[in-house]
Amino acid sequence: MSLLEETISAIKPADQEWRQKARERLASLTMPHWALGRLMDLAADLAAIARSLSPAVTRRAIVVMAADHGVAAEGVSLYPQEVTVQMVGNFVRGGAGINALARVANAQVVVVDMGVAGDLTAWRDKVLNKRIRPGTSNLGREPAMSRDEARRCLEAGVEVAQSLASEIDVFGTGDMGIANTTPSTAIAAVFTGLPVAQLAGRGTGIGDAAWRRKVAIVENALRLHQPQAEDGLDVLAKVGGFEIGGLAGLILAAAAQGKPVVVDGFISTAAALIAQSLCKRCADYMILAHRSAEAGHRAMCRRLGREPLLDLGMRLGEGTGAALAMPLLEAAARLLTDVATFEDAGVSRANIG
Amino acid sequence: MSLLEETISAIKPADQEWRQKARERLASLTMPHWALGRLMDLAADLAAIARSLSPAVTRRAIVVMAADHGVAAEGVSLYPQEVTVQMVGNFVRGGAGINALARVANAQVVVVDMGVAGDLTAWRDKVLNKRIRPGTSNLGREPAMSRDEARRCLEAGVEVAQSLASEIDVFGTGDMGIANTTPSTAIAAVFTGLPVAQLAGRGTGIGDAAWRRKVAIVENALRLHQPQAEDGLDVLAKVGGFEIGGLAGLILAAAAQGKPVVVDGFISTAAALIAQSLCKRCADYMILAHRSAEAGHRAMCRRLGREPLLDLGMRLGEGTGAALAMPLLEAAARLLTDVATFEDAGVSRANIG
Repeated sequence: MSLLEETISAIKPADQEWRQKARERLASLTMPHWALGRLMDLAADLAAIARSLSPAVTRRAIVVMAADHGVAAEGVSLYPQEVTVQMVGNFVRGGAGINALARVANAQVVVVDMGVAGDLTAWRDKVLNKRIRPGTSNLGREPAMSRDEARRCLEAGVEVAQSLASEIDVFGTGDMGIANTTPSTAIAAVFTGLPVAQLAGRGTGIGDAAWRRKVAIVENALRLHQPQAEDGLDVLAKVGGFEIGGLAGLILAAAAQGKPVVVDGFISTAAALIAQSLCKRCADYMILAHRSAEAGHRAMCRRLGREPLLDLGMRLGEGTGAALAMPLLEAAARLLTDVATFEDAGVSRANIG
Repeated sequence: MSLLEETISAIKPADQEWRQKARERLASLTMPHWALGRLMDLAADLAAIARSLSPAVTRRAIVVMAADHGVAAEGVSLYPQEVTVQMVGNFVRGGAGINALARVANAQVVVVDMGVAGDLTAWRDKVLNKRIRPGTSNLGREPAMSRDEARRCLEAGVEVAQSLASEIDVFGTGDMGIANTTPSTAIAAVFTGLPVAQLAGRGTGIGDAAWRRKVAIVENALRLHQPQAEDGLDVLAKVGGFEIGGLAGLILAAAAQGKPVVVDGFISTAAALIAQSLCKRCADYMILAHRSAEAGHRAMCRRLGREPLLDLGMRLGEGTGAALAMPLLEAAARLLTDVATFEDAGVSRANIG
């Protein structure tokens, strides 16, 4: 069995008995019934994932996977491709948005080169090297990668998660890759079945002409390559990206380890859809961090059957939404461990109801 | 000049020049324009409040003000009045929801007795004593308190904020008081002008009959006492509560100190409306933590001219929403201080736009 199949076969559904135990505990806490709403739902999810009433959430990593995209040549981004490698440097030096927010979240930032089109030798000791090749092929003309490369992306993500397994309780996903909302839009279209024009957003902030070009390129790619929604590897190969595949592998491996994975915005959710198509059960381990400002994100979340926690009009990626959501996981876990029950605290219960 | 008038006269509007400087800095950070959305708006707000590009947000307190309400006798809550004093004990022992969430927020919890109907002598060294009297009068029959008591509540809140001034960068508001959604609904009705039935929620989880009683009591109180929206002291006295007045005073004092105050849910927002009616400028210093599940909260936020940061279906009070929002303030502040500009980081700018 390959690493990918092994990982998938190790994924168990979240445990409904532990969820029920958690719900009972939460219902007995010194507060009106379910008065902390979705934070209590999250606490029950964490208990079901961890099979414990004291789910571990203190050791956190945001895994930021970077790669380039052949489709950038079509002018679908406001930024030149060299920004991908420049931003990897920024991550390593600690100056990017994700570095700032990871400090708030008490999370380490793990940077992975999945296939950046540039020279990263200066940061070799600070960046995990999982390069497939320097950028995908232009999905507007040919499949982004081969089926074998798609599998290698996924397994690279599994390997990264395995290398962190002993030191991490919660994974967060992050991405960097100029033009990567284009493959993500294609993936969204495959899995939601919605029209591309309804899913495509402004990415880095493109104008109307570039947006129309982006829509046309994705529509054309879907017609040309015919990615099959029931075959996640096929979708990833034809219209995906190396970092998207890496993140999908990371999500599968987190689920196999029985740990929550906080899924960032638009690109990470595309990766989550790939992971879900490879193993439906893995969605039990996903916590959607925030509702991206990108147009298609709502439909993608619906397809995953989850609601994001935050909605702050963000669209940066890098794992910034995942980092912002991590304190909510700690808060949810502490409801289970830190809050007294009516009985413990000698507080009177409700008169009725 | 009294303490209240002194406090109000010390409140300056937030500084628009510092807001502009912050916006320029934020626009030059290594990310697409305004890609962190409302987190960047919040960063600009914090800069305008602090008159600084490195606003201090690390030293935090949630001030939980507790008091009882005569209107509890009308059966508008699911819980007996003794729960107020029992929950004060729970706060002191560290077993309540707010204690758990304040740990996540790195915030101290300051408990204030504004007028609890019970014996707090056992916790005298752990609870600030600002008791007006053991519970308001029943606003269904008579004004909740005298105009002089209303002023004393507000000044008690100012005093609490002053006693914390040297050790706190950010205030959060919290409340405890069985039946206190009833006065808060009355305050909401006065300031929004909307029908009571549209504003009244289920509070601790009351059924239809108790909800109809609550609406009738509030409607009757408004007819009977005729609170005047342009006179915040009058509204507080006739249909308010001691903890609501204390929190309004705390909000005014935070604004006078030039510090942000994170306003929790329904009850705290009622206090914010009282504060706003006493000094319009103080709204500049408010950060609305979350959208409460209580029906009237949306209209109250609109009246304050602010959008809450979180929306997690919470309705506990105690400052739990304020605590959950505090990491977002730290994240916003770190955008200003920790993130490199395009120039600093040698990252290429957008090609167009």
